[in-house]
Amino acid sequence: MSLLVVGSIAYDTIETPTARRENVLGGSAPFFAYAAGFFCPVQMVGVVGADWLPEYTEMFQKHGVDTSGIEIVPDGKTFRWSGKYHKNMNDRDTLETQLNVLGTFQPKLPENYRRAQFVFLANGAPSTGLAALEQIQGADLVAADTMNLWINTTRPDLDALMKRIDGLVINDSEAMMLTGEINTITAARKVSAMGPKFVIVKKGEHGAVFVSEYETYVVPAFPVENVVDPTGAGDAFAGGMMGYIASQQGNLDGETIKNALVYGTITASFGIEGFSFDRYKEICRSDIDERREDFRKMTSF
Amino acid sequence: MSLLVVGSIAYDTIETPTARRENVLGGSAPFFAYAAGFFCPVQMVGVVGADWLPEYTEMFQKHGVDTSGIEIVPDGKTFRWSGKYHKNMNDRDTLETQLNVLGTFQPKLPENYRRAQFVFLANGAPSTGLAALEQIQGADLVAADTMNLWINTTRPDLDALMKRIDGLVINDSEAMMLTGEINTITAARKVSAMGPKFVIVKKGEHGAVFVSEYETYVVPAFPVENVVDPTGAGDAFAGGMMGYIASQQGNLDGETIKNALVYGTITASFGIEGFSFDRYKEICRSDIDERREDFRKMTSF
Repeated sequence: MSLLVVGSIAYDTIETPTARRENVLGGSAPFFAYAAGFFCPVQMVGVVGADWLPEYTEMFQKHGVDTSGIEIVPDGKTFRWSGKYHKNMNDRDTLETQLNVLGTFQPKLPENYRRAQFVFLANGAPSTGLAALEQIQGADLVAADTMNLWINTTRPDLDALMKRIDGLVINDSEAMMLTGEINTITAARKVSAMGPKFVIVKKGEHGAVFVSEYETYVVPAFPVENVVDPTGAGDAFAGGMMGYIASQQGNLDGETIKNALVYGTITASFGIEGFSFDRYKEICRSDIDERREDFRKMTSF
Repeated sequence: MSLLVVGSIAYDTIETPTARRENVLGGSAPFFAYAAGFFCPVQMVGVVGADWLPEYTEMFQKHGVDTSGIEIVPDGKTFRWSGKYHKNMNDRDTLETQLNVLGTFQPKLPENYRRAQFVFLANGAPSTGLAALEQIQGADLVAADTMNLWINTTRPDLDALMKRIDGLVINDSEAMMLTGEINTITAARKVSAMGPKFVIVKKGEHGAVFVSEYETYVVPAFPVENVVDPTGAGDAFAGGMMGYIASQQGNLDGETIKNALVYGTITASFGIEGFSFDRYKEICRSDIDERREDFRKMTSF
């Protein structure tokens, strides 16, 4: 099976109440791809500039991520994002965004990517997602993430995209913004009525909810005491979830969905224990399975 | 077994974005007692005025709650609270508080209450809880609730109380206020270090967390779409939880604790579907068990 992700690739500068890191690897596609890579082979599509470090290509390749879909613009600079977390480590302010090569990104999928069975359009302009979908034939499952920026600025593209996808992953505040509803479940149902058959609402440190016409599943977050950097947690959640679904051949029965939510949660819970990919690089699949078992003991009844 | 609760009894006036109710039954002891009454016999201690309606006494007695500990002050008026919920149905503003008979309340426990095995000091002045504990001999398990008011105004009493109890139930924002910690688990551990062997942090629509020295359990909230009135949900959560623990003879193994958290969550989830006790009066234990099974299907993996 193959899982393809299209999204932003970034160099992040991150300030937390206790530390600061400059120009570390970030972006929706890398976090998704690395998290999914614990579960299945991944193909990554994105764009970077001449400042892209070969060590990152190597890191992904070693982890089972095909990087031939990363376009390197020789005279360009990689997208940069800079943000500062509040004391609660949940809210954050964006300090600076430099689109650089991401501003004119037109995804061009390598030939062997075009028959991907599983596709995830990680956070990025909806038009980028639509352009990628034009190049893919007969995917079994297409899901996407979105964010407030696209809800506010490119709503027609987002509406078009929502009619083309099976599932949408969205933050609780964004689901409320998109629908005007204040109840998470009601908001998720309204988002689903806009196109996607299922909607997964991410609630950060409070877990996630899956809603489809006949099903509702709920997962709390794994309790992490030492939150170092939450950047990319939502992308890694989606990566762990989609990676697990792909590893189960796209089966979408209730047990698979619940386990996918849990694997997403557990995978993301490691990432926030370090900056950028620091913590991910220390762990392997068995660490995820071990923590999943701890989580089962914390929650099962 | 016997479960005793001491707390406030109130007439509430409640405004939500869509409705308003005047002088409906509320207060920490009634919500706790009714919720616990689904699981075990309950003894309720509190004070009311001449405006107390006999129909409420009857409602509790029919539900297995011993009301002989309710003191009626013939020339007094029952405590009144008035509040207005924000659009999110989670935050609220207190519009008015009339202490009335609660202002001078000195709990006097009937003789047959003084050997209660299980005791819950529902939200009320810590000095009231301490005065009640003085009259109880050899309880197996004593737990309490608290709130921001007591953290801010009667901290020495609260500190003394915390050294006398086995467990504390507390809101997330209050746990943070009490400890200065922003992480829920870290805050819970610090609260535990102040006395209680276990701490249960209530996160409202996001569920609850149990923390003791060697254990952590997590339960999400049951997803309710039609939230009519959240007043008393925290008290009912504690009531369902303690009622279940009492029904299990105070066993505190992991399975009992997790089931207690779940029963608390499920019991409270009914209450918020109506004003005051409207919804509780429509249900029985089998409705709770049925929804618990739905919840298990939503969350088990």
